[in-house]
Amino acid sequence: MKQAQWIWYNGDFELYHSMKLHARREEFGVEYPCFWSLSAPYPTASFAKAFHADEADILRLVTPHKAYITIDNVRYAANTDIAIAAGDHVARVVILAQEGFPCIYINSKYLITDETWVCDHLAGGPVPVGTWDAYTSPEDDPRVFPFAYETLKAVKITNTDEGKLYDFGRETFAVVRFDAHPAAKIRVVYGESREEATDPAEALIRETVTGKSHYDLAPRAFRYICVKSDGAEPTNVIADYEYLPLEDRASFSCNRRDVKKIWDICAYTLHLNSREFFLDGIKRDRWCWSGDAYQSYKANNYLFFDPAITKRTIVALLGKPPYEQHVNTINDYSMYLIIGAYEYYFATGDKRFIEIYYPRIKALYDFIEGRLNHLGYVCHRPGDWIFIDWSDIDKGGDLCAEQILFWQCRNAMAALSELVGLEGDHYRNAADKLKRNIMRDFWREDRGGFVDCYTTGRENITRHANIFAIMYDFVSEKRARKITRMVLENDAITQITTPYFEFFELCALAKMGKLSAVQKKIESYWGGMVKLGATSIWEQYLPEQVGIQHYGMYGMKYGCSLCHAWGGGPIYLLGRYCLGVYPTSVGYETYAVEPNRGTYKHIDGKVPLPEGGEVTVKMDGHTCTVTTTRAGGTLILKGKTYAIPVGEALTVTY
Amino acid sequence: MKQAQWIWYNGDFELYHSMKLHARREEFGVEYPCFWSLSAPYPTASFAKAFHADEADILRLVTPHKAYITIDNVRYAANTDIAIAAGDHVARVVILAQEGFPCIYINSKYLITDETWVCDHLAGGPVPVGTWDAYTSPEDDPRVFPFAYETLKAVKITNTDEGKLYDFGRETFAVVRFDAHPAAKIRVVYGESREEATDPAEALIRETVTGKSHYDLAPRAFRYICVKSDGAEPTNVIADYEYLPLEDRASFSCNRRDVKKIWDICAYTLHLNSREFFLDGIKRDRWCWSGDAYQSYKANNYLFFDPAITKRTIVALLGKPPYEQHVNTINDYSMYLIIGAYEYYFATGDKRFIEIYYPRIKALYDFIEGRLNHLGYVCHRPGDWIFIDWSDIDKGGDLCAEQILFWQCRNAMAALSELVGLEGDHYRNAADKLKRNIMRDFWREDRGGFVDCYTTGRENITRHANIFAIMYDFVSEKRARKITRMVLENDAITQITTPYFEFFELCALAKMGKLSAVQKKIESYWGGMVKLGATSIWEQYLPEQVGIQHYGMYGMKYGCSLCHAWGGGPIYLLGRYCLGVYPTSVGYETYAVEPNRGTYKHIDGKVPLPEGGEVTVKMDGHTCTVTTTRAGGTLILKGKTYAIPVGEALTVTY
Repeated sequence: MKQAQWIWYNGDFELYHSMKLHARREEFGVEYPCFWSLSAPYPTASFAKAFHADEADILRLVTPHKAYITIDNVRYAANTDIAIAAGDHVARVVILAQEGFPCIYINSKYLITDETWVCDHLAGGPVPVGTWDAYTSPEDDPRVFPFAYETLKAVKITNTDEGKLYDFGRETFAVVRFDAHPAAKIRVVYGESREEATDPAEALIRETVTGKSHYDLAPRAFRYICVKSDGAEPTNVIADYEYLPLEDRASFSCNRRDVKKIWDICAYTLHLNSREFFLDGIKRDRWCWSGDAYQSYKANNYLFFDPAITKRTIVALLGKPPYEQHVNTINDYSMYLIIGAYEYYFATGDKRFIEIYYPRIKALYDFIEGRLNHLGYVCHRPGDWIFIDWSDIDKGGDLCAEQILFWQCRNAMAALSELVGLEGDHYRNAADKLKRNIMRDFWREDRGGFVDCYTTGRENITRHANIFAIMYDFVSEKRARKITRMVLENDAITQITTPYFEFFELCALAKMGKLSAVQKKIESYWGGMVKLGATSIWEQYLPEQVGIQHYGMYGMKYGCSLCHAWGGGPIYLLGRYCLGVYPTSVGYETYAVEPNRGTYKHIDGKVPLPEGGEVTVKMDGHTCTVTTTRAGGTLILKGKTYAIPVGEALTVTY
Repeated sequence: MKQAQWIWYNGDFELYHSMKLHARREEFGVEYPCFWSLSAPYPTASFAKAFHADEADILRLVTPHKAYITIDNVRYAANTDIAIAAGDHVARVVILAQEGFPCIYINSKYLITDETWVCDHLAGGPVPVGTWDAYTSPEDDPRVFPFAYETLKAVKITNTDEGKLYDFGRETFAVVRFDAHPAAKIRVVYGESREEATDPAEALIRETVTGKSHYDLAPRAFRYICVKSDGAEPTNVIADYEYLPLEDRASFSCNRRDVKKIWDICAYTLHLNSREFFLDGIKRDRWCWSGDAYQSYKANNYLFFDPAITKRTIVALLGKPPYEQHVNTINDYSMYLIIGAYEYYFATGDKRFIEIYYPRIKALYDFIEGRLNHLGYVCHRPGDWIFIDWSDIDKGGDLCAEQILFWQCRNAMAALSELVGLEGDHYRNAADKLKRNIMRDFWREDRGGFVDCYTTGRENITRHANIFAIMYDFVSEKRARKITRMVLENDAITQITTPYFEFFELCALAKMGKLSAVQKKIESYWGGMVKLGATSIWEQYLPEQVGIQHYGMYGMKYGCSLCHAWGGGPIYLLGRYCLGVYPTSVGYETYAVEPNRGTYKHIDGKVPLPEGGEVTVKMDGHTCTVTTTRAGGTLILKGKTYAIPVGEALTVTY
């Protein structure tokens, strides 16, 4: 028999942990909950399952909430033993959670709670329940996120004017614990940099404690902590690294050791930001932002291939109808969420997920569509934030980048609708019409690019819309080449300054076959941070800055996050375009391996596939060797294709 | 300066306490949360207010939740002192409540939290905040309902086979407290009747405790408790009556003492059921049911005239969109809620309330309308409960009573829409069209009544639809008389068996001038319960039953609730039709006093008016004396009208 699991209304777990997560930010000692609206879990639910007992048995409904269970319509109390007779039965649980969210656990011989149950929220139709194999014992509590812990000791301790400086060697996210004298007043200043930890006036995170003999501080991001006591020195200062145990299922190396180091640091950056959901960064916001997360979905498929965290993130970001606000308040972020849900489906083939969440996705889409202007364009409405990037984009009117995203959003809706058995053509037709309008209004054939905005007269061209046009196949191959030449490779066009959009730009360049340029950029841009001693990738990197200028952002001396998930792009870029692995049909039923060394002499790496599969790729100037554990693979090399056998190396000499 | 109050997003307080309330039911030791979907409060909110400080000052944001306050866009921590300069400022609080609901308190010289603040839920538009003058101190907690307590001692203690029987003299709702030896195992059986308290196998509420030296049991309904210990006897057994302090602002007496007793018992019944919201009954469900509550709104205006409890009840029942289910799952109950909101407005003139909740009322209406059938009739859809009454109604097809309610619901929507500045005619036109169809399909001119249902061929006539037709002025005066004669006064038509619909029937009869019949029914039906020793009015009363048959219902020996709010009808009937007080324009700007002794020799009573006003009426065979504290009153007597002066008795001899 299978293992019993705690079950809940699908989505409630994510909404609950999203509330906890978004309440956790702090800045200069001030609590800083997120500024957008969150959805609460449903307080009421019912769970149902038909089952057969071969013989009389005892079962028990375990739950911390107000609930009863009916067996064949007879009501019994929760948390008591219930005798059942042999035969066919129907169990139904009605539950009300005043706090947390409705969740139940049953582990008897003939009835266990697992993913085969259905539930509703005492209204609406039944949906499959949510589960997680982290919660399998009656003592488990799904309100407690299943983090793992690992004790870290400082690698170096030095005395400074501001106290004892503990250096843990690299960025981490941990519970600082220490013993102290209750009379001592102890100040702990956290720093992602040494400078921040020793600058108590400007450091974002600090805490002063007194009155206890042992402290376990809130989990926070840092590499350094500076600890100052007005009395006895604290002892046994350790950091308990708090993390979600996700297995690294990828690797990348080549003849350049700096590139392997970049890849490893990117992987570590993604690790630190992969927790309840994909976070933006671990020091400052620690929030779940849809645009940032969208990039993490992509990197996830080339590092962990963990569908669960992508799903959790999508569900947390989706919240619940009615929609009255864009995701994170940002127009583009609503659209990434819908596009991301489609891309998640394409990568995993997880139709069940789409079936469960299609109503919410559709409701979000309807919200977007309900706010178009009379031209059918995504526009700025009260409460909206037209973001795209921290960049000098002409936002004086409807933005081209938003429209291209919306075009792709409609394509995604067409596919998702058809997946759940509904009609998709009206989305596709609306996308076609939108495309014609975008080409008419924003495209400048002579300049080989899209202007940001066509109504201000500024005729400003930035990279953003043009990157999307390539990324999403919005333009023909011919025009994509033109954009590449006249915009992306044109130094007169303002450079991207965030790893966030740098990633999108490199996706577009790689797609256009400019792998050398991509590699060069990874080496200089990501490599630039690593050369400056980064142990994780930053939120922003401006090569022209020096010293602690790099740590400043948003008007704060240490405002820049030094461990930002959107820096993880090279994981995807090197896996997708160097090792060359990508799905050619839904859920990797078929997939290609199309390796390209670019400027490297040799490459050697591993890319995860769904359901624990993996591909390894080794390539130098003469030979390419590929192994896989999953059927459906095709090696594409120098215009030729080779079926990749399972469990046996395929070596091609060229 | 005014008193500072805790403030919250309008409606959150009600949704939170509704969750608590609907989790409290128990039956035979089994927790029994409600079986319909509840809405949770918004977890996120922002509160804002512009203010002026004459001089520099200190303020402090008090809240148990994660929050910050910005003063002129600078962020400060909650629960700390904040220095503000003299001058104009804007304060804004952003808050996230993982449990409970967002609520804040500020009490400084130049800024206090009160009803002048606005809030949003970090999406949607700003609405005025919710407040209650029960929460005015920083130590108050709006998550704790402000009940009052009063210690009751048993009036009689007797020994029985099942333990010591404590009789508290009349029905109550109280926390039972006692001291005991920790080794003793003590069983407490609750009873609304002596029989129930001494029948541990069949009593609905019982609890066995051990291991402590003092107990405070959960608050429950009872008149009797039977306490049995397996060791030392418990001592200091008391009942702490838990209640909402509402002032009785009405009275009624006449030459018949039994009628005064009925009135007093009805008033007490309403008291016991007027708590967080209007409950159905205090022993069994203790839930908030919209149909039951609708009658309490009416009685409230003739006993407490407390708009707050009616508002809280409407808000709790409304929940939040999206609507996926009828209120309490019952079609008729959704409609009473909308009609009730309009009647609340008419009685109080509280436009602010309608402005705040119109979007929810409209969304609920749209839900109802979205489920009509192709004939435009309210019909049974999956998940619906077509209730009307516990009675033998022909429910084989669309029900006439539902359609007449929906007609009135459309009239209410027309008025509410126009009140908030929207167009109302389309509701009125739709109501007219519906009326034509109802008359065509359900009306039987020859039988002088409406059939329950016109599609089954049964041509069954019950009282229910016919009562609504009179109550809501659905038919002409002439047809109303016909209905009265051929249906209501026709003993061949099945009698009503619940005080619930008996109340509606008496409203219809009183309206048709049949006051003597109404009085007779009050004396026999309500009086019948009182004669049987009732200290509060029952959920159901069948005169032909005997002994403990009266206590049974729903297949349970003591299933009938002996303290049911829907028994409070005589409060309304005697105030409205005997003392004759009723508003003739919105909010009693004008009102009539049209006394009618009916069969009584003399009557003497008091009826509350809005804002603490009151009318007293004294009448015998020769003279009528009326006093009032509120302008706008007109005495109507024997076809003549007299303006009632304020603060001076008006005596008319006739």
